[in-house]
Amino acid sequence: MSEENVVYIGNKPVMNYVLAVVTQMNGGSNEVVLKARGRAISRAVDVAEIVRNRFITDIDVQNIDISTEEIIGNEGTATNVSAIEILLQKDN
Amino acid sequence: MSEENVVYIGNKPVMNYVLAVVTQMNGGSNEVVLKARGRAISRAVDVAEIVRNRFITDIDVQNIDISTEEIIGNEGTATNVSAIEILLQKDN
Repeated sequence: MSEENVVYIGNKPVMNYVLAVVTQMNGGSNEVVLKARGRAISRAVDVAEIVRNRFITDIDVQNIDISTEEIIGNEGTATNVSAIEILLQKDN
Repeated sequence: MSEENVVYIGNKPVMNYVLAVVTQMNGGSNEVVLKARGRAISRAVDVAEIVRNRFITDIDVQNIDISTEEIIGNEGTATNVSAIEILLQKDN
């Protein structure tokens, strides 16, 4: 999967990310990966649900992975943060 | 799956839910389902990651489902909220 197909979910309004995914899909992509960490994880799930329920009904959640990432803070201390990857794919 | 094997994730501290899952597993359950809605979704992922990385290393995330649930508010208005179900299962 190329980097182009990844949408990173942060703290912007949900609809910004929904628009990004819809644009990708309408531009010819068959799949998009949503990536999020920490509190943005819930927003990633919102994005996936809104896209498939309201905008592109012929996509499925193909796979969901969760993991733990280590973040190095300003003072060099390591913190663990949970992460999620949601793979959205068009039906064939 | 019986209701006993479900741990509902809400707004309490993460370690409360981690303890609930570990207790279930040590009490003989082979699987536990974590359920969460809205902002608690990120916490559910935290719980799954902490349990499998720090407490019970022989469990896997067997399946993750996301969905949309309709909640009826005080004034009778319907709101959509995202939900997640994470199935944790012991290796055989």
